[in-house]
Amino acid sequence: SRTIRLAVVPGDGIGQEVVAEGLKVLGAVLPADVKLETTEYDLGARRYHRTGETLPDDVLAELKSHDAILLGAIGDPSVPSGVLERGLLLKLRFAFDHHINLRPGRLFPGVASPLAGQPEIDFVVVREGTEGPYVGNGGTLRTGTPQEVATEVSLNTAFGIERVVRDAYRRAQARPRKKLTLVHKNNVLVHAGHLWTRIFAEVGREFPEVTTDYLHVDAATIFFVTQPERFDVIVTDNLFGDILTDLAAAVTGGIGLAASGNINPSGEFPSMFEPVHGSAPDIAGQGKADPTATVLSVAMLLDHLGFAAEAAKVEAAVAADLAERSGTRSTSQVGDALAVRVAG
Amino acid sequence: SRTIRLAVVPGDGIGQEVVAEGLKVLGAVLPADVKLETTEYDLGARRYHRTGETLPDDVLAELKSHDAILLGAIGDPSVPSGVLERGLLLKLRFAFDHHINLRPGRLFPGVASPLAGQPEIDFVVVREGTEGPYVGNGGTLRTGTPQEVATEVSLNTAFGIERVVRDAYRRAQARPRKKLTLVHKNNVLVHAGHLWTRIFAEVGREFPEVTTDYLHVDAATIFFVTQPERFDVIVTDNLFGDILTDLAAAVTGGIGLAASGNINPSGEFPSMFEPVHGSAPDIAGQGKADPTATVLSVAMLLDHLGFAAEAAKVEAAVAADLAERSGTRSTSQVGDALAVRVAG
Ligand SMILES: CC(C)[C@H](C(=O)O)[C@@H](O)C(=O)O
Ligand SMILES: CC(C)[C@H](C(=O)O)[C@@H](O)C(=O)O
Repeated sequence: SRTIRLAVVPGDGIGQEVVAEGLKVLGAVLPADVKLETTEYDLGARRYHRTGETLPDDVLAELKSHDAILLGAIGDPSVPSGVLERGLLLKLRFAFDHHINLRPGRLFPGVASPLAGQPEIDFVVVREGTEGPYVGNGGTLRTGTPQEVATEVSLNTAFGIERVVRDAYRRAQARPRKKLTLVHKNNVLVHAGHLWTRIFAEVGREFPEVTTDYLHVDAATIFFVTQPERFDVIVTDNLFGDILTDLAAAVTGGIGLAASGNINPSGEFPSMFEPVHGSAPDIAGQGKADPTATVLSVAMLLDHLGFAAEAAKVEAAVAADLAERSGTRSTSQVGDALAVRVAG
Repeated sequence: SRTIRLAVVPGDGIGQEVVAEGLKVLGAVLPADVKLETTEYDLGARRYHRTGETLPDDVLAELKSHDAILLGAIGDPSVPSGVLERGLLLKLRFAFDHHINLRPGRLFPGVASPLAGQPEIDFVVVREGTEGPYVGNGGTLRTGTPQEVATEVSLNTAFGIERVVRDAYRRAQARPRKKLTLVHKNNVLVHAGHLWTRIFAEVGREFPEVTTDYLHVDAATIFFVTQPERFDVIVTDNLFGDILTDLAAAVTGGIGLAASGNINPSGEFPSMFEPVHGSAPDIAGQGKADPTATVLSVAMLLDHLGFAAEAAKVEAAVAADLAERSGTRSTSQVGDALAVRVAG
């Protein structure tokens, strides 16, 4: 028998609602001899308003002792932009060295894409999670004056690029099409871009079976809407990955379905699974949020913890549910339906 | 009688072909008492291979003495990525302080969008052209080694942001919907993002009739495919503008139709007009390229030089041509058809 120690951070807005359904499905799919121990952490806008804290050191230390983290959504208009993102969400990703930010882009049968012709879409974006323009390196001079200057420094290391690129090659190698696309902007961001390009070519020598190509990020957005079926695995930097995965969510039926994993493959730190969507305060507390993205993130969590069969069950349940969807259901109705399916 | 001194830079690949059609239409639409004096400059991959030069100082000085520049496309796979982009195209934009990079996103009647439902799309992106991650500020340490570090510094100034933001407000004010959307990523790139947000709010006080909103760049890509009709004028930074305008081109029928102006509104330096597409070496020299993007860029050029009626004529000709398109036509057939329309 095995115990999963799961830290749960519901967060803000619809976070609470969707996480509840994710846990419901997780509980239903786990084998009887696996014990699920969850600890909920109150982090996000409420705590920030109450105590001024975003992620206290002792909470960070406690989170570290878990096998994984399930996160709902972080952010509220009442908190200045960036405070919770940098102070909590990104702090977790950086503190736990989540260098693989994994985001599948899959159009499930029965789901309407905004793209005419309903193309077949089944790719995965491997987004770097701990470098690039996300490092928080920058500042302002003459702040608040008409002479203000603001900088943002994108930091990129061979070390950081190599590990995410190798991870992406491995994933491509394991997929039927064995295709890997590097997305960057190496004709403008020449320093970072050439480093990515060099490492991509070097690591590629270890994977002779994988077909590769390169796209500038602007061109990639075109293919996302005109020819999304061309993509298999995409590897890209933190910011480009952020942009492309929202676009991927849009063309595959919306962010209500987009899952993600912030993964530390070494297991040194807990990996964190979260829907790509935000806290959506406009629909919070109304049972309107689609918990599917969270449930699919739970599938990624299961896979990461070695429960491949259970992960596949959850994905199959979602696929079946989406194929048969009709009418409007509440957040918990969707969760119930999925829990029944995985238990069946 | 008036003379237009136009510098023409056909550039690489299909550049030559599309520019020829742009000039054909320009010649056909200009009033009889306007003299068009064109000087062609051989810049791009061929010159680089021949002489190693991208943009020699004397050519830059000559270009400066013109009223405007018409550019085809720059870039070829035989030249290392970044050499011509940074050494020629971006050098021109920066040297001539093209801080307004204007890119309309309009779905013409009769043009198929890859979006289901063929939404109404008619917005314009005002992309900052002289700052942000495009400044070329960055470098590498331990270059070529497994310890390499590469940086890219995004530079943003209140001065630079204010002038493009004010320009965008003016354009919004002049349009029926009077709506302006700021796109950035101020929850992550907090230094640059907050500066953009502050200036956007400050300048907005001068334009009480303009409705404003803000979107993170990732969310903006979602709306580009799910609800593009929500946009009127968008103002954004150099890199986000690059990405969003390729996506805009994709949803409005492809880069064969996407025009752009690199504008210096003061007139101190010549503005430069160019299609958004690249040099497309795979179809170069075959008469397959659609010159419409260049012709629409010529319309922007006319408008910039004060020929508003002629600009409108060119746009109307394109609209009529697109509405009636059927079958495949060569590059020059499209140009001929448009020239006939504007002359009629
Ligand atoms: C909320 C924000 C910091 C975050 C990001 O930019 O990574 C989000 O957009 C995401 O994609 O997970
Ligand atoms: C070719 C490249 C330097 C350029 C850019 O990034 O601005 C192009 O993509 C564009 O949008 O005009």
